[in-house]
Amino acid sequence: MTEQPEHPSTATPFWRADPSALLRVGDGFSLRDVDPGSAPGTHADKAAGLAELARSAQELRELQEKLFAQSRLGAMDRLLVVLQAMDAAGKGGVVNHVFAQLEPYGLALAAFKAPSEAERAHDFLWRIEPRVPGPGLIGLFDRSHYEDVLIQRVRGFAPPEEIARRYGAINDFERRIADAGVRIVKIMLHVSPEEQATRLISRLDDPDKHWKYNPGDLDERLLWPEYMEAFQIAIERTRAAHAPWFVVPANRKWYARVAVQRIVISELQRIDPQWPDADFDPAVERARVEASLGLHWPG
Amino acid sequence: MTEQPEHPSTATPFWRADPSALLRVGDGFSLRDVDPGSAPGTHADKAAGLAELARSAQELRELQEKLFAQSRLGAMDRLLVVLQAMDAAGKGGVVNHVFAQLEPYGLALAAFKAPSEAERAHDFLWRIEPRVPGPGLIGLFDRSHYEDVLIQRVRGFAPPEEIARRYGAINDFERRIADAGVRIVKIMLHVSPEEQATRLISRLDDPDKHWKYNPGDLDERLLWPEYMEAFQIAIERTRAAHAPWFVVPANRKWYARVAVQRIVISELQRIDPQWPDADFDPAVERARVEASLGLHWPG
Repeated sequence: MTEQPEHPSTATPFWRADPSALLRVGDGFSLRDVDPGSAPGTHADKAAGLAELARSAQELRELQEKLFAQSRLGAMDRLLVVLQAMDAAGKGGVVNHVFAQLEPYGLALAAFKAPSEAERAHDFLWRIEPRVPGPGLIGLFDRSHYEDVLIQRVRGFAPPEEIARRYGAINDFERRIADAGVRIVKIMLHVSPEEQATRLISRLDDPDKHWKYNPGDLDERLLWPEYMEAFQIAIERTRAAHAPWFVVPANRKWYARVAVQRIVISELQRIDPQWPDADFDPAVERARVEASLGLHWPG
Repeated sequence: MTEQPEHPSTATPFWRADPSALLRVGDGFSLRDVDPGSAPGTHADKAAGLAELARSAQELRELQEKLFAQSRLGAMDRLLVVLQAMDAAGKGGVVNHVFAQLEPYGLALAAFKAPSEAERAHDFLWRIEPRVPGPGLIGLFDRSHYEDVLIQRVRGFAPPEEIARRYGAINDFERRIADAGVRIVKIMLHVSPEEQATRLISRLDDPDKHWKYNPGDLDERLLWPEYMEAFQIAIERTRAAHAPWFVVPANRKWYARVAVQRIVISELQRIDPQWPDADFDPAVERARVEASLGLHWPG
């Protein structure tokens, strides 16, 4: 036996087991069995979590920069992260504390709201397709095409046979973009209804946060069991080796953030991007630059 | 006399004078008189500059969050920052060290490359218009429609009468979007040719940076005087009260970054965004959330 963990992404005392393995949805998954207050893979506390989040920023950035760099010379790899959750589960915090660590050039963020009239006049994937990230980018969907099988199912905005059709359409779509070089990671941030209530009340108690509160959010909250059922079905029907689901316990914000950070790092490590070779002769170019220093331009 | 500076943006010992005033292009401007190695407004050194950059991040973020928040309730204000420079002048560093401080939700980054065949088949503003930021956003153009009067003039890609037409077209365009609520700030990062050479050589000496080097960049470098003339003319003809130009000395990277950060903060302070009032009754909503805690959902 060795002290060295098998996977480089867990080579830190913070993680006792790789969260990207622990949180990945497998056979026989039941959302009901996931404790939103748990912290799989670590025994650390909030202070250690925040330190880990800061510590791993450099690792994340270097992988992203390599991914971006290799695309400039033709590599097609890119990553798409889909974030889904009930309101106040912490999507915004994950964006602002994990994805904000990336260089702005490498991040393509798409926040999907309720569809517009023009969007509703098309198939549900019409507005999604143009937002698929290009080579070298990390795409982030804050809500996504999964809204079309979550709120649309729970609210009955589409009939059951249309919802059923959509699971297949999503699978076809994700298979197709995976074939084009898009690595897909789908993440549900999972809070308890009690924790959601605490967060909604804290928004209501702070006038500077009122803009984040929408009375309609509470109407969705009252349909909690229906939403959990819709998540369970959507996850079951759309998980795939090329497009896995991860359910991240999110009652502790620090845990959700370090877990998502580690999942993204692990997926980038699987892509294993490399600094591209130069398509020019560095010695020749160096001589050209040096020669140009002899030029005398008007001051 | 008082110790309090007049403008809140200079309420720091780092700045002895407001760089957003010092670097703003005024009457009789001559690019030739700007020393790329200077640091107007401060006597501080690099260490103090990096500390200032970190210290002011919170101020920048809070202004941005307010700008974003007020747009959710209908305010139309947004900011567009246009970045132009010779290669290796530090645009990337400004993006990664200043604009990376913003929440990803609030930043709309558009990097304009050489126009595609489809883009060349349209007027030069055709590809620019869709990238104008929406309400609440900070738009950042890394290169822009100014390429169409810089490289296109220097290289003769368009005839002189077409270049002449474009200054007027740019002024009309910027006036129109300003009228729609877009505050426009145009920034030239100004390096010396000697500093550029040093940076190009340092890229060539580091294989991990080779992807950032393009042999074509050196061809542009050899036209330095022509580029400076093109910048001088473009700045003269397109500066306006609603769309000012700033020329930022950029031989010292830390200076360029804190100066751009302070210019952006100053412009956001002029917009003076406010937390929006709630369009619901917080007490009523709080009672609704609390009532929902009594519900018993299946575990």
